[in-house]
Amino acid sequence: MIGIDWGTTSLRAWRLERDGAIIEARTSPRGIMTIPDGEFEPVLRETVGDWLTGGETRILLCGMIGSRQGWVEAPYLPCPAGIEDIASHLTRVAFPDADIMIVPGLVTSDSNGVPDIMRGEETQILGVTADAAAPMMVCLPGTHSKWAFVAGGRIEQFRTFMTGEAFAALSTHTILARTIRPAAIDPASFAAGLARAREPGGLLHHAFGVRTRSLRLGIGEAESYAYLSGLLIGHELNAALDDQSGTVAVVGAPALTSLYVTAIQTLGGTAVAIDETAGATGLAHLGARAPWT
Amino acid sequence: MIGIDWGTTSLRAWRLERDGAIIEARTSPRGIMTIPDGEFEPVLRETVGDWLTGGETRILLCGMIGSRQGWVEAPYLPCPAGIEDIASHLTRVAFPDADIMIVPGLVTSDSNGVPDIMRGEETQILGVTADAAAPMMVCLPGTHSKWAFVAGGRIEQFRTFMTGEAFAALSTHTILARTIRPAAIDPASFAAGLARAREPGGLLHHAFGVRTRSLRLGIGEAESYAYLSGLLIGHELNAALDDQSGTVAVVGAPALTSLYVTAIQTLGGTAVAIDETAGATGLAHLGARAPWT
Repeated sequence: MIGIDWGTTSLRAWRLERDGAIIEARTSPRGIMTIPDGEFEPVLRETVGDWLTGGETRILLCGMIGSRQGWVEAPYLPCPAGIEDIASHLTRVAFPDADIMIVPGLVTSDSNGVPDIMRGEETQILGVTADAAAPMMVCLPGTHSKWAFVAGGRIEQFRTFMTGEAFAALSTHTILARTIRPAAIDPASFAAGLARAREPGGLLHHAFGVRTRSLRLGIGEAESYAYLSGLLIGHELNAALDDQSGTVAVVGAPALTSLYVTAIQTLGGTAVAIDETAGATGLAHLGARAPWT
Repeated sequence: MIGIDWGTTSLRAWRLERDGAIIEARTSPRGIMTIPDGEFEPVLRETVGDWLTGGETRILLCGMIGSRQGWVEAPYLPCPAGIEDIASHLTRVAFPDADIMIVPGLVTSDSNGVPDIMRGEETQILGVTADAAAPMMVCLPGTHSKWAFVAGGRIEQFRTFMTGEAFAALSTHTILARTIRPAAIDPASFAAGLARAREPGGLLHHAFGVRTRSLRLGIGEAESYAYLSGLLIGHELNAALDDQSGTVAVVGAPALTSLYVTAIQTLGGTAVAIDETAGATGLAHLGARAPWT
């Protein structure tokens, strides 16, 4: 089968064996934001047309392709949701020469009635946890970091943190921009930011410290960048991590997951990094249970 | 004398009696950001030239005019600092037909060695606290909110929160911008944001809730604006306010101080709003102690 994680700004496509082994992988910048409505079929053919003519007839899509701005809307499924629940709520896409289905996103609501949503991450989570017996925490860091608690094979609940997007907004659209320069993360400055996040004062106060450390202590621009990153990730971890977290599975691109793993270990936790092929694994698990025609 | 709070984006000028009574007040958009270096004198003459020809010979300036980007740099004075300390560290400006001095900003450092700074707010704080016998907390909300603890007539320590600037960055430069519209603050939504800030999850998670409440609960754009405002002010208050705060003096423009007073009262504290003429009062107090030639 073909599995595609089709997001807002890019897509990842995999040609998969029945057992989930990856035969071939492709990435493309044709995220749904770049595609006018009605143009999803030609983009799909551009991307994996040769796999279709090569004999594939099953395509499973996950990610923002199932949103209102995507190809066909795949309504959110409420948590808790396990792999069987998700596989039995796929949305079909009319397509002449293949069977196409879209994985639903998930919705949850905390004890105070505030909803949270994900779309695409549920598939990566299933890729990591489908074979796990013990409860576990999965972290998917990024623009909107997701933390999901999985038990008994079901995604019980999750939370989103605007860490990546807040980092971009603070570092480019506030006074902090004047003394920050994107650079490879300096480990000592990152650790200083992490430590600062544990102190009193809160994020809104700590962030101003990026400015004052620069003005008064002469901290450099690259160091300020790493410090702000540590601050924000530290505040995310303060809220997301607790003594019951166990070993956190951190899923994503290595540059980001290594930062999170380091941060979690610095705070006394344990974590493992898992790369983005978790999405392919999740799609394969769902594909094995999907009601193909 | 003439007192001027000369900030980054605007200035406020007052013609003052010896006892601090305001004879006349003026505001102008000629903040230091709008003025090329070397052009401060003509802008001063444009703004208060008639007061000089009318007989005033003493001008006291506070605010960003004393920064490195201002007219003459007035170095930061360390906390704790009382009115006598500040009045004895004014910086003179060479000027042909008047005696001009600039009030220094203040610098503090917390127990973890992170510095904090203010410039202009120290004068407003003195305007509020110069006659106060008991210790008190002063809050100056805004782009960079300041919270100062004043005891024995001295500004003991203070903290800055990037609340206003973070609000602007999050509401215009993140995904939240899609479902937010600036509007008069809706009290119920503001209160909901304040209450949310008391719950677990942290600011980075709570902020994403603005998006999910809009998508899943159909919350309107004006309501989301007020909710985000309540969230951010709530997180500021979580860190700034404690059981020992007593009655907080909230200094600033009425639209903003009323929000903060409401928020502090909602959290069980007490607060009073004080308008921006606190700056004039502070300048008068300092002027009465200044070493005029």
